[in-house]
Amino acid sequence: MNHPTLAPGAVRRPVPAELMDELRDRFGEHFSTAAAVREHHGRDESPFAAIPPDGVVHAHDADDVAAAVTACARHRVPVIPYGVGTSLEGHLLAVQGGISIDLSQMNRVVSIDADDLTATVEPGVTRKQLNDALKDTGLFFPIDPGADASIGGMAATRASGTNAVRYGSMRENVLGLEVVTASGERIHTGTRARKSAAGYDLTRLFVGSEGTLGVITAITVRLYPQPEALSAASVSFPTVRAAVDTVIQTIQLGVPVARSEFLDASAVRAINAYSKLELREQTTLFFEFHGSEAGVAEQARTVQELARENGGEDFEWATRPEDRSRLWNARHSAFFAGLQLRPGARAITTDTCVPISRLADSLIGAHEILERATVPTTILGHVGDGNFHCMLLIDPDNPDEVAEGERLNAEIVRLAISMDGTCTGEHGVGLHKMEFLREEAGDGAIAMMRSIKRALDPHDIMNPGKIFAL
Amino acid sequence: MNHPTLAPGAVRRPVPAELMDELRDRFGEHFSTAAAVREHHGRDESPFAAIPPDGVVHAHDADDVAAAVTACARHRVPVIPYGVGTSLEGHLLAVQGGISIDLSQMNRVVSIDADDLTATVEPGVTRKQLNDALKDTGLFFPIDPGADASIGGMAATRASGTNAVRYGSMRENVLGLEVVTASGERIHTGTRARKSAAGYDLTRLFVGSEGTLGVITAITVRLYPQPEALSAASVSFPTVRAAVDTVIQTIQLGVPVARSEFLDASAVRAINAYSKLELREQTTLFFEFHGSEAGVAEQARTVQELARENGGEDFEWATRPEDRSRLWNARHSAFFAGLQLRPGARAITTDTCVPISRLADSLIGAHEILERATVPTTILGHVGDGNFHCMLLIDPDNPDEVAEGERLNAEIVRLAISMDGTCTGEHGVGLHKMEFLREEAGDGAIAMMRSIKRALDPHDIMNPGKIFAL
Repeated sequence: MNHPTLAPGAVRRPVPAELMDELRDRFGEHFSTAAAVREHHGRDESPFAAIPPDGVVHAHDADDVAAAVTACARHRVPVIPYGVGTSLEGHLLAVQGGISIDLSQMNRVVSIDADDLTATVEPGVTRKQLNDALKDTGLFFPIDPGADASIGGMAATRASGTNAVRYGSMRENVLGLEVVTASGERIHTGTRARKSAAGYDLTRLFVGSEGTLGVITAITVRLYPQPEALSAASVSFPTVRAAVDTVIQTIQLGVPVARSEFLDASAVRAINAYSKLELREQTTLFFEFHGSEAGVAEQARTVQELARENGGEDFEWATRPEDRSRLWNARHSAFFAGLQLRPGARAITTDTCVPISRLADSLIGAHEILERATVPTTILGHVGDGNFHCMLLIDPDNPDEVAEGERLNAEIVRLAISMDGTCTGEHGVGLHKMEFLREEAGDGAIAMMRSIKRALDPHDIMNPGKIFAL
Repeated sequence: MNHPTLAPGAVRRPVPAELMDELRDRFGEHFSTAAAVREHHGRDESPFAAIPPDGVVHAHDADDVAAAVTACARHRVPVIPYGVGTSLEGHLLAVQGGISIDLSQMNRVVSIDADDLTATVEPGVTRKQLNDALKDTGLFFPIDPGADASIGGMAATRASGTNAVRYGSMRENVLGLEVVTASGERIHTGTRARKSAAGYDLTRLFVGSEGTLGVITAITVRLYPQPEALSAASVSFPTVRAAVDTVIQTIQLGVPVARSEFLDASAVRAINAYSKLELREQTTLFFEFHGSEAGVAEQARTVQELARENGGEDFEWATRPEDRSRLWNARHSAFFAGLQLRPGARAITTDTCVPISRLADSLIGAHEILERATVPTTILGHVGDGNFHCMLLIDPDNPDEVAEGERLNAEIVRLAISMDGTCTGEHGVGLHKMEFLREEAGDGAIAMMRSIKRALDPHDIMNPGKIFAL
């Protein structure tokens, strides 16, 4: 998308030949300026056209990261941390040029401390990779944004996903970090204790900072015992309101559902086609329950009753592991399935999150806004948290469609903000939600964020031009 | 305690008569310089002798706070926010002089949004007051540090307490804040959405900032449905290790206990005397289980089995509400009960928290260190989190006892830090743990905290001299 307002006033900063020489000397073949490599690192899953960095360092350890940042700091050249490229808000675009630090090869699971229910990983480890490494421990890492994102990227964007209603987001599940600061120094935040009142919460300051304060080079996360029993179900509803009311009542009753996912008819159609399912193509909820055998049965009974009272039908159980996997793989593919509704399209994705009592108004309001769309759309989301996503499938080369998509996106976001909600539940601000963040947080809070940024990154080299304008 | 190292180099700053006049004009009878009032506001529950502020403003709303801070900022005079005075680490001592802002009369419950499971309160509302206000809603606020602390103070120190093992600490349960900044501006952080990825996590930066970045003037917290069933039990153990092993196994199995509290024989003796209980005076665990009838029964069965395998005996159930209240009131009075072991004594209190696998080594290590004490001691704590407190009952006027208390305290803290634990799980750093924070976090992290402090409070007026030296 050639988006005129994407990075207003952004100017590529000069990158001195001296820096390029230094990086070539230090990193050899692990430093690349090839056009294809730069192009690949200048984009993400958002609809924005790539804005390539001037070069890409493939880091293999925290020393590499520190060396690259130190060199860039000396020359006041931007640094953009890169995980696996699954961002949705333009986080990776080199709007002011600079050097991308690719962390995907820092992918060691440093330690699994099963007795403490913690693991420490390098930032390039993906969530699936960590869960594979945990297989024989009886533990799992619950945060699951759909994409097989890197855990460093998930920390940087404060990601969450389907399990957050039960297990929380990266905010609740990162215990500590190793960070390379804007001056190239390595610091640690947090310990492996489950709670602490020891000074400013630097861990939570970096979680969600989107690469603008430093580069995360190690993450200690919380793990959970695999539940004794699991059960999943899908149920379809006659109306959006009926489905949402079921979710609201579930949450208000305190039923500890592990997952509670909404799909509108269009999203169901998309995953039926993409994942070869035969779900009834109407508003649908997917649930998952974790607990003891008795606990899961009890939760399922309560939710089934609530769903029936709200007119839910076709309650389909997936108790066998393979059926559960099929259901959740389909849900996880929903973004790509949605894109297939219109081959060649890219998606503008909303990410609002509202207090649970406003979920029905917010979701039905979004549904009505999308009825005016001329492009295909879907809605899906982690509604147990009040968080859902509208996908607007636009042709990125058609300025009218881009404008329409952005207009409807803005209406949906502003509706959520008017309900004391947020413009982004889990994707982050990046380039695309900067104006909405200002409206949501207010000038005073933005000024405070700016002060922090200036204090920790005085030359504005860390992923500049993201979250807010300096 | 006349503690020579308490605030090294601290010098009272001059307070111009002009400021005092301004405050008198603005606040009338709500501004006091009476010696008794100043003395009362210059101390907390720690053993430190009072260091009174130069005056006390009784604030009644956020405008009062903003006016007081603005006036102090203009004259570069320190501001110390004061809730109800239950801090344990010297947070309230006016080590550089200045104006205490008493927030206890900002005690309105602003809103209870039962459908959203949130409430917004002024900072002087105490946890018991909030729970009283929630009585007819079927909801409760779980964070419970024992003392009937103010929710503003609990946010400022990142408090937790007995329920944190199940419900988290203030870190997890504050959704948003209103804050008066060091320049007297009012800002909001966060929304009422359950999760958000919208910019830097200012909410969590202020939670635990101990009044050093601004004054919290409103807090939006999460609420929880009252569990359908509750059950509590006490069980005594032949050894410290047997009790701790029971807790570790409970956590590692993922049993969602609501409370899991440790008391050594001395702590049991203290609460027997103070609260007229007849518990066997040996190492004891208190448990509480929350859930459905079936869920509670299942949890209780599992924990009872684990306890028996570890040699636990005298499993006493408190299923009637009055028996449960008796047990937990006794636990909550344990600090004051401990003080009664030695009338006239004050307590040096440790607050370490370690990864759960190190809990036995840490607690037994502390137990051994305390065996060398010449003063009475007790140990109690929220061991499900790895957090426990040693109380050393010293005569604050006896320099030898003060020195001994501090020496043993330091040994216990350093043992926890050596186990990748923290010097403070929930009390905060205040004056008393500054050196330990430095050892725990390292110079790099402290330098980062300092940068943030300087950026948000350039004249160092907000509760100066706490957490770290500037």
